[in-house]
Amino acid sequence: MDGPPSYETVGRLSRYRRLLTRRVETGSEGVYSHELAAVAGVSAAQVRRDMMAVGANGSPTRGYNVEKLVECLSVELDDPEGSRAALVGVGNLGRAMLSFFQGRRPKLSIVAAFDREPYKVGRVVCGCRCYSMDEMSQVVIDKKITVGIIAVPSSAAQAVASELEDAGVRGILNFAPVALRISPETFSEDIDMTMALERVAYFAGRNS
Amino acid sequence: MDGPPSYETVGRLSRYRRLLTRRVETGSEGVYSHELAAVAGVSAAQVRRDMMAVGANGSPTRGYNVEKLVECLSVELDDPEGSRAALVGVGNLGRAMLSFFQGRRPKLSIVAAFDREPYKVGRVVCGCRCYSMDEMSQVVIDKKITVGIIAVPSSAAQAVASELEDAGVRGILNFAPVALRISPETFSEDIDMTMALERVAYFAGRNS
Repeated sequence: MDGPPSYETVGRLSRYRRLLTRRVETGSEGVYSHELAAVAGVSAAQVRRDMMAVGANGSPTRGYNVEKLVECLSVELDDPEGSRAALVGVGNLGRAMLSFFQGRRPKLSIVAAFDREPYKVGRVVCGCRCYSMDEMSQVVIDKKITVGIIAVPSSAAQAVASELEDAGVRGILNFAPVALRISPETFSEDIDMTMALERVAYFAGRNS
Repeated sequence: MDGPPSYETVGRLSRYRRLLTRRVETGSEGVYSHELAAVAGVSAAQVRRDMMAVGANGSPTRGYNVEKLVECLSVELDDPEGSRAALVGVGNLGRAMLSFFQGRRPKLSIVAAFDREPYKVGRVVCGCRCYSMDEMSQVVIDKKITVGIIAVPSSAAQAVASELEDAGVRGILNFAPVALRISPETFSEDIDMTMALERVAYFAGRNS
């Protein structure tokens, strides 16, 4: 790929790979750009540009080879040494993240979870060991964790983010509805589910 | 407000209200635009423009009255008759949505949940009754539900979306990682948590 891919491009590549992985499981060998475009919600031209950028070649008659495509996307998306993530906050949302991820990505796994509830500490939740909050910095350092998922209440989110950063985390996925103050060296993305639902309700009201 | 607010504006208004609601609970009377800006992650000038647009007046010395601000935002955001939402898929993610929402918004509530697992049907989960998938259309019509939350696996998402639309839903919050085909009259927003985590991991790798 010429130059680093943008935020939007990385999102699309991730989505393509997931859709293609499902096709591998169903035994499909080939896929056309327009098919991938339809499920990914982009244009076929966009799919072809993205595939060219990751070095994947298709044929107009047979499309792309699905397995090769997954390989090309993985070279672009994955750190060859793998990425390790920590989940902070083992509530329903945290468990949803664990169950989505555990064992599905060879190169990205949630290797530790943290919660302040003593009865969760020491347990294995959805395949992931839960530690106490006091252990956070040490575990993050020991396990070389670079990604943090914040699924704690808003009031605790900033302190968690700062501690994760100090321990070496360089990417944060934040579900707490609050703007985090983090250093420019750390990449962060916010998912505000409550805001999203309120917005959908707002526009649904206008459409009813 | 002059003209309909944009997608981005509605998101900000929702976020302001949530942050302000927390201040009401802690007994704060006044708030300055720069304080709200810091927690919402926008500029103070943006906050002042948004507040002016919803008809809220502040004073340079005392700031805005918190309760009045919440009122102005609610007039803009809420349907006076209330919005009713349905959740489809009562897994960890669905339960997270239920626990975030139940009882917190006077004008927006999740009034029905649906799942295909027989052992969930008839139960009350996080304050919300769970129905079987077969009952979906009828319950959506009977309860005048206009908002749908799709938290089912990708393979089932399109069928659920179509059935919700046919039953009168005009806004869909979709957590399934697949592009839904819905009519232009329905507003939809996608939240792809897996893609978001992969993207954070990607950029964290570049920053490490």
